Amino acid sequence: MIPTLEFDARLAPHLLQLTAALKRVEAVFDEQLASDLPPIMQLVSHVEKYRGKMLRPMLVLLCGQCVSGDDGLVPGARHLAAGAVCEMVHMATLVHDDVLDEADTRRRGDTVNRLHGNETAVILGDYLIASAYHLCSSKVGHEGSLAVARASTVMCSGELLQLHHRADFSLDEATYFEIIRRKTGELIATACELGAVLAGASDPGIYYNFGMELGVAFQIQDDLLDLTGSERVVGKSVGKDLEKGKLTLPIIHMLYSASRSQRGELLLLLEQACVDSGLGDRAAAAAMSTIAACLESSGSIRYARGVASSYVDRAKSRLGCLPGAQGAERGTSAAKEILLTMADAVVARAF
Amino acid sequence: MIPTLEFDARLAPHLLQLTAALKRVEAVFDEQLASDLPPIMQLVSHVEKYRGKMLRPMLVLLCGQCVSGDDGLVPGARHLAAGAVCEMVHMATLVHDDVLDEADTRRRGDTVNRLHGNETAVILGDYLIASAYHLCSSKVGHEGSLAVARASTVMCSGELLQLHHRADFSLDEATYFEIIRRKTGELIATACELGAVLAGASDPGIYYNFGMELGVAFQIQDDLLDLTGSERVVGKSVGKDLEKGKLTLPIIHMLYSASRSQRGELLLLLEQACVDSGLGDRAAAAAMSTIAACLESSGSIRYARGVASSYVDRAKSRLGCLPGAQGAERGTSAAKEILLTMADAVVARAF
Repeated sequence: MIPTLEFDARLAPHLLQLTAALKRVEAVFDEQLASDLPPIMQLVSHVEKYRGKMLRPMLVLLCGQCVSGDDGLVPGARHLAAGAVCEMVHMATLVHDDVLDEADTRRRGDTVNRLHGNETAVILGDYLIASAYHLCSSKVGHEGSLAVARASTVMCSGELLQLHHRADFSLDEATYFEIIRRKTGELIATACELGAVLAGASDPGIYYNFGMELGVAFQIQDDLLDLTGSERVVGKSVGKDLEKGKLTLPIIHMLYSASRSQRGELLLLLEQACVDSGLGDRAAAAAMSTIAACLESSGSIRYARGVASSYVDRAKSRLGCLPGAQGAERGTSAAKEILLTMADAVVARAF
Repeated sequence: MIPTLEFDARLAPHLLQLTAALKRVEAVFDEQLASDLPPIMQLVSHVEKYRGKMLRPMLVLLCGQCVSGDDGLVPGARHLAAGAVCEMVHMATLVHDDVLDEADTRRRGDTVNRLHGNETAVILGDYLIASAYHLCSSKVGHEGSLAVARASTVMCSGELLQLHHRADFSLDEATYFEIIRRKTGELIATACELGAVLAGASDPGIYYNFGMELGVAFQIQDDLLDLTGSERVVGKSVGKDLEKGKLTLPIIHMLYSASRSQRGELLLLLEQACVDSGLGDRAAAAAMSTIAACLESSGSIRYARGVASSYVDRAKSRLGCLPGAQGAERGTSAAKEILLTMADAVVARAF
């Protein structure tokens, strides 16, 4: 479950505890989705199979431990439920994104829409969202319901803003960041904040900001992988962003740093790469490979990697005021060390 | 807003109050959906234009008044918010249903998916759901969040069950009722129950059962209108159920009451009416019109109308234990009288 990161050896017992806690989050998750109707159980068990990195539950648990200093203790029922809720909301967006992207592969398995059609994928996503709210209001409590509902609203507004700017080749960096803060940053920030709030944090804003910056870095890395990754390693369809007219940071940088004549050529290539261009797959693939070369030569890939790294650095510095490495014998610091290592992994990952 | 029903003249002042209260529900609704992002405001204002009969908010308010006896009083903020929440959840399912049904017309306006594409319709539906939960957890409170989340989960399970039985020509009545209780009955029942609970009802189950039976009758009537109504009067695309392989009560009755040889012919016609048959629109329309004639001659339309009426009668009898017409001078009875008239209208309506 926990990615193969470079953790300090003395964190091993804490990581074992975290793994055990995540298993319990999964159990809460599965129990909440259980249905007395066999066809629904069949769909749910398919979705459970492509459960991912469990980033959000990990953040809920670790931020809670940062506050309570109870690394050695088992997380309480509210933290476990909050972790399952965040993962369920996230999974609902994946299921709906697959409808939108017409993606065929997700985490090396067939997507729901491919197996059962778009209609089932839409309602299954709705079922996941409704189940998440039900779990939240029954097991996490009022502040959880409010936080998760607010985060979901902001997430949707980010997705709608992104759709509005589809095939908008004049998209600027400010709007790009507004989109990714909303569609990705907000839920990750809320997971961190909620973990802290449930542990009685006096300063949950620190955790919110940590999560927001981590989320922004995470999305930039995701966008980079869509341009540069291989489908086999990433585990989902790649090259989809441009096909669907979705401009990401490297492309925006390349367009803004090009000369006027270069810009004209690049715009033509981008239009050809769009799935709506009507030029067919071969022309789109040729355009994609020329764009990939331009992204390297213009330094736009390097630029985006640098921006992602700077967000990771800012996220890590948020945790600076919490007990640090010097206080390694204290409970709080193990959770903090794990969070810092996870933050580095966000930009180092190839999947 | 309130349909042109046959109300007793002495209810006129109460109906004026209800109309005023519904205007305030709309204001809460619009305020909750407001966004600082112009493209989102544009989508939201489009959806607001096709707001419908406001059945669910009316039920929240009237059931609350039945309990509190405060017909003369303005409903409180929690009732207004609960009304807006139920309408928002309902509207989200309409937006997502339009994606599923590939419907082009909804309440005499173009559907979101036709104007902006399926992708926007999916996320806009999600935005409505998230906003509903946000409003519920911020303005209605904990029992509201729990009830609405539970109802949404059940609704989705009903939709998934329906999709599972798509083009299943052996669908029986028991499964049909299981589907419509979940997908339609549950939210209407919850609207009634929530209105009563928020007014401090000691017996909210009466209102839940009233709403469930009303909701079942409402769905049977909706299904009848899809088979027998005209698009001009109903205000949305008709004949879609069979096209999408969705069997409803009249069809189930017709198949079960047919002789073995008739049944074979009917199954052939039903397959031709499916949009997936590949026979084209003309063949599908011809099959539809033969099916319509069979539904009349087999008495299946009459049968379904009778079942809907019996559900309305059962719903009305649930309210029997509340102060009735004899106590007309008492506050409770005006709300009750309006509920009884609305119940009759459910099966009398042509839209």
